[in-house]
Amino acid sequence: MTLPTFQDMLDAHKRIAPHVRRTPVMTSDYLNDLTGADLYFKCENFQEAGAFKVRGASNAVFGLSEAEAEKGVCTHSSGNHALSLSYAAGRRGIPCNVVMPRTAPQAKKDAVRRYGGTITECEPSTSSREAVFAEVQAATGGDFVHPYNDPRVIAGQGTCSAELHEQTGGLDAVIAPIGGGGMISGTCLTLSNIAPGTEIFAAEPEQADDAYRSFKAGHIIADDAPVTVADGLKVPLKENTWHFVSNHVTDILTASEEDIVEAMKITWKYLRVVMEPSSALPLATILKNKDTFAGKRVGVIITGGNVDLDALPWMKS
Amino acid sequence: MTLPTFQDMLDAHKRIAPHVRRTPVMTSDYLNDLTGADLYFKCENFQEAGAFKVRGASNAVFGLSEAEAEKGVCTHSSGNHALSLSYAAGRRGIPCNVVMPRTAPQAKKDAVRRYGGTITECEPSTSSREAVFAEVQAATGGDFVHPYNDPRVIAGQGTCSAELHEQTGGLDAVIAPIGGGGMISGTCLTLSNIAPGTEIFAAEPEQADDAYRSFKAGHIIADDAPVTVADGLKVPLKENTWHFVSNHVTDILTASEEDIVEAMKITWKYLRVVMEPSSALPLATILKNKDTFAGKRVGVIITGGNVDLDALPWMKS
Repeated sequence: MTLPTFQDMLDAHKRIAPHVRRTPVMTSDYLNDLTGADLYFKCENFQEAGAFKVRGASNAVFGLSEAEAEKGVCTHSSGNHALSLSYAAGRRGIPCNVVMPRTAPQAKKDAVRRYGGTITECEPSTSSREAVFAEVQAATGGDFVHPYNDPRVIAGQGTCSAELHEQTGGLDAVIAPIGGGGMISGTCLTLSNIAPGTEIFAAEPEQADDAYRSFKAGHIIADDAPVTVADGLKVPLKENTWHFVSNHVTDILTASEEDIVEAMKITWKYLRVVMEPSSALPLATILKNKDTFAGKRVGVIITGGNVDLDALPWMKS
Repeated sequence: MTLPTFQDMLDAHKRIAPHVRRTPVMTSDYLNDLTGADLYFKCENFQEAGAFKVRGASNAVFGLSEAEAEKGVCTHSSGNHALSLSYAAGRRGIPCNVVMPRTAPQAKKDAVRRYGGTITECEPSTSSREAVFAEVQAATGGDFVHPYNDPRVIAGQGTCSAELHEQTGGLDAVIAPIGGGGMISGTCLTLSNIAPGTEIFAAEPEQADDAYRSFKAGHIIADDAPVTVADGLKVPLKENTWHFVSNHVTDILTASEEDIVEAMKITWKYLRVVMEPSSALPLATILKNKDTFAGKRVGVIITGGNVDLDALPWMKS
């Protein structure tokens, strides 16, 4: 276990500033009325690469020495880390090799290629992903930037809630989706230092609820190949993210596939932002647990906006 | 002809400040690369009511004396003015009666009712709209807030480009869609005073190109019932908006239905905002006229985001 420090987050914020956006925080009177809470949506879908993952990826890429950078970077990812790492590597002008499940959204694969990344496809399971990745890494020798367990990545993701805290003047609670736990860990790293009284909630699909079950059991439980519309949230916790989740998270809440799609559509309609299914988990769980959030000032992290517009989950296929 | 003055715009900005958002300006490296221009998108779709029209509507509603306000307001509108006037009237607690074409998007009709407005439907033609409206106005006695020819409305719409100018530090050009010409007129009113060197472009569907033909002919030409996916842009110019268009607009550019839908989808994908077909006209015409905009700093007004998510123009019906 190699944990990032609060100073690492501060350093990351300076390092990545030229490469990421300070995304806006949006509100909706309608959604506040609907939930009974004051919701502050941090729109990471408005990053150029469309996801908060560009924070951690940029921190890793721009923290490499010239010698380290020469062989480039490599990773495995369900999508947004892959395209974000490709984006950051492209800005630095170094190679990027990524392993992605063949079932990843076309929009995410297209973006990796647009940014100059090279894709090797695997089956949509953790076991296949890790096996294929081992081959790619051996062949390229690139620096491995794990999508969420890497301390450089966690420190980078932590810059998001630092901005959210500044932009809102402080919150009672922050809620973000949880897959491997990179965003939640960064949020814990930052808020436990600058606003330790802030509750931190993680939101997860019922059909990929390994973090929820881990949290209740007190140790990591991993599923190999869960099936959910929230394609970014299928991966299991690892030791570094488990450290933050087990020590700092207030609770993990879950939502059904139907709830996720409904919350996604509500956000598109009333906040008028394009976000992906994974990003709908926070609102979906807030709507299911109104008493937990009523009357509170709640930060909601909209993690990404890379969707296939021709295959929206409410479209008839 | 009763034209608003620059002072009317300044007064409007103070009057409506508590009721409208200072919407963010967004950029996209991808869209800049695609067009060769520096585009600054003013996101009026992020108004609570989802459209810039809330500026003019709020200026009219909150400018009424107590005695005038008693009988409420009334109007005819293809959608966004109707829901914006309902929203503003709801905030003041006065009645709002609107005449809308029966073919207006369901999302817009739903919003009018949510805000407390009362809808009377008409046929989708200017003639039917005006006839039905005369009956409604006679029955209710409400103050008529014309969707674009009303000087209070033009002054209110002018606050948008005042903000855009402040937020960007000045631009070479501004482009907005044109239907009846309220937004374009407000833009002309403001920029001709604070930044007279700024070019002002209007963008219109080829299939509803009455403003384009008027501009070329030198007098108002009105179509009765044009057919276009850009449902907000079907209405003709009137004397007040014609004054601003004929005196201050640099050029009017047009785009095909296919171009409009393509530009809409590109914006959803790369800017990740939900905007309606009418709002895609500026990008559609910039993409068709790259030489006109290349190398320039261009403000693009995203006028609204009230769409039927179940009937997107690229969905198979």
